[in-house]
Amino acid sequence: MTTERTRVDAKKLINFSMKALQRLGVPEEDAQITANILGATDLRGVGSHGIVSLVPFYVRGIQGGQINAKPKIKVFSQAPATATIDGDQGLGFVIGHHAMMEAIHRAEKTGAGFIAVRNSTHFGTAACYAMMALERDMIGIAMTNPVPEVVAPGSTKPAVGTNPLAVAAPAGKKPPFVLDMATSVVAAGKLRVAVREGTSIPEGWAIDKEGEPLTDPTKRVRGEGGLLPLGGTPKHGAYKGFGLAVLVDILCGVLSGSSASILRGATIGSDHFFGALRIDSFLPVENFKKSMDEMIEAIESLPTLPGVKKIYVAGGYEAEIEKDRKANGIPLNSEVIQDLQELAKELGIEYDL
Amino acid sequence: MTTERTRVDAKKLINFSMKALQRLGVPEEDAQITANILGATDLRGVGSHGIVSLVPFYVRGIQGGQINAKPKIKVFSQAPATATIDGDQGLGFVIGHHAMMEAIHRAEKTGAGFIAVRNSTHFGTAACYAMMALERDMIGIAMTNPVPEVVAPGSTKPAVGTNPLAVAAPAGKKPPFVLDMATSVVAAGKLRVAVREGTSIPEGWAIDKEGEPLTDPTKRVRGEGGLLPLGGTPKHGAYKGFGLAVLVDILCGVLSGSSASILRGATIGSDHFFGALRIDSFLPVENFKKSMDEMIEAIESLPTLPGVKKIYVAGGYEAEIEKDRKANGIPLNSEVIQDLQELAKELGIEYDL
Repeated sequence: MTTERTRVDAKKLINFSMKALQRLGVPEEDAQITANILGATDLRGVGSHGIVSLVPFYVRGIQGGQINAKPKIKVFSQAPATATIDGDQGLGFVIGHHAMMEAIHRAEKTGAGFIAVRNSTHFGTAACYAMMALERDMIGIAMTNPVPEVVAPGSTKPAVGTNPLAVAAPAGKKPPFVLDMATSVVAAGKLRVAVREGTSIPEGWAIDKEGEPLTDPTKRVRGEGGLLPLGGTPKHGAYKGFGLAVLVDILCGVLSGSSASILRGATIGSDHFFGALRIDSFLPVENFKKSMDEMIEAIESLPTLPGVKKIYVAGGYEAEIEKDRKANGIPLNSEVIQDLQELAKELGIEYDL
Repeated sequence: MTTERTRVDAKKLINFSMKALQRLGVPEEDAQITANILGATDLRGVGSHGIVSLVPFYVRGIQGGQINAKPKIKVFSQAPATATIDGDQGLGFVIGHHAMMEAIHRAEKTGAGFIAVRNSTHFGTAACYAMMALERDMIGIAMTNPVPEVVAPGSTKPAVGTNPLAVAAPAGKKPPFVLDMATSVVAAGKLRVAVREGTSIPEGWAIDKEGEPLTDPTKRVRGEGGLLPLGGTPKHGAYKGFGLAVLVDILCGVLSGSSASILRGATIGSDHFFGALRIDSFLPVENFKKSMDEMIEAIESLPTLPGVKKIYVAGGYEAEIEKDRKANGIPLNSEVIQDLQELAKELGIEYDL
């Protein structure tokens, strides 16, 4: 049940998003940051968080007043390596970019920079911010705590968000390590894809309100039951996935002066946490990168089970997709194309994809 | 098949361990640090990493020359918030305590402190170091990368250690948040317990060399197959558990100037990573603790499934055990008691437990 897909040039897509956001009152620089991140997300193959969200999440969010197109971002700092940021309910991309740069600048001075952010909104994928550290020879960290969708082991009521965390570390010849994971068994986006494609979901992803396996994704999307934390069942380590999710809530929600997501309720708002570690404050960068290459090569050289083509280190698969999409364009399905064409009409901008 | 258990006073146990270590040439202060951490581990109920390991791991390690009783620990620092430490193959407890204090001192000055450690040995549980941050109103982080036992998704050869990570954050009236988790489905200690008790292990914990479920723990303990990363199967997020394990290897092994565990081979040696974040460099400590209490209370108040008595936040269950064991002593089984009695004779120290 795959729909027709058209390949669209990434630069054109970024330019289109930028024009749309500017038309909604987003300042040029902020529109550029947002459009770049949306484009980078689609280039890496994370379709659930790229241009597909432009209209329903961000355009409607700005038009509906849940997202502030012209936020006054405030930085509060008591120490050289750390700060807290109030995002004034702006676009999560703009606030996230600003906060990650703040972490990077502090790491340039002290070796480490850590920033907790409150009053932000959905910022797309965490990887995009963690990866900002790569070209500066730093290790980057990013997390966020969206609305609760994941149950605690032993309960059936959502207690934590899918609370993704991302860490990026540069390598030498090999693609960088980029881990970007929901702390639930699967990201919420995978259920939306299943609903769109009319398929059921495997047992072990979600439970219903009686604690039984939920395999009809429309039930969960309508609010029944909840996703399971990474590990799935207590016997297989669900308290670890849940513990990681609570950790993300502590660093994003509690440490920023907001609150854990369980106390915040359903809203597009979310909090974030960013970190940067300057590699040359630990060891020479060339030693680090050589050692990263050696590790990645050793893992990629592991014997494989029948039917497995390649063992990947986190980020390796996405790097392959990015190479293809940079050369051949980003595949968009006809519903997304239609969404963007209607948006162009609505806002009176040129549709040139 | 539980064996007889005797309750032993924690202070006496700590004192006994200290005398034994001193008799082996460990300086008084280092023996005290090590004995305190072993005792704290047993008080929190993590029996696999406490006094039970004194004789086989640490006494025999020192006697066999794999552990240096009098290490010269060296600190290398290029920036105010970060440092690298060479542990000179000393006791992991001593090196870990030293390194975590270094992280804390740096966080006192800059808000954040991060330390990568090479040339260390087994340091017990990561939680003990992360928890050193609690009384200083900091968030503590600790990780280590022991010998590979965990497979990559798609392979059956161990590629990463169980690579545990721990994070501790203080609360107000409630027990602190203390997450201490192997990044595998289960810690290796759970298989040793199953071997000792003669029981099989559930499917989903380990696989054999053909990739089939391994349920006889003696096979794995003899080196066959490997443990599964948290998530278990690729469909249920095993690449996330594996990604977290690789992350721990990067921060401990690569960043310290050692190497990822896959390149290090089988040894008692390991590397570590420690971090501290000073809460009052983000927000007032009392606000943080109040918000932590509110989060923990909200999670503990979630509706439970039939048969579930209580929903715990990480660290809550261990706090209950600690309360009991501080009052009533640490339960030790007869084999451990016998081990310690024989050790007393061997070293010529008094057995007074």
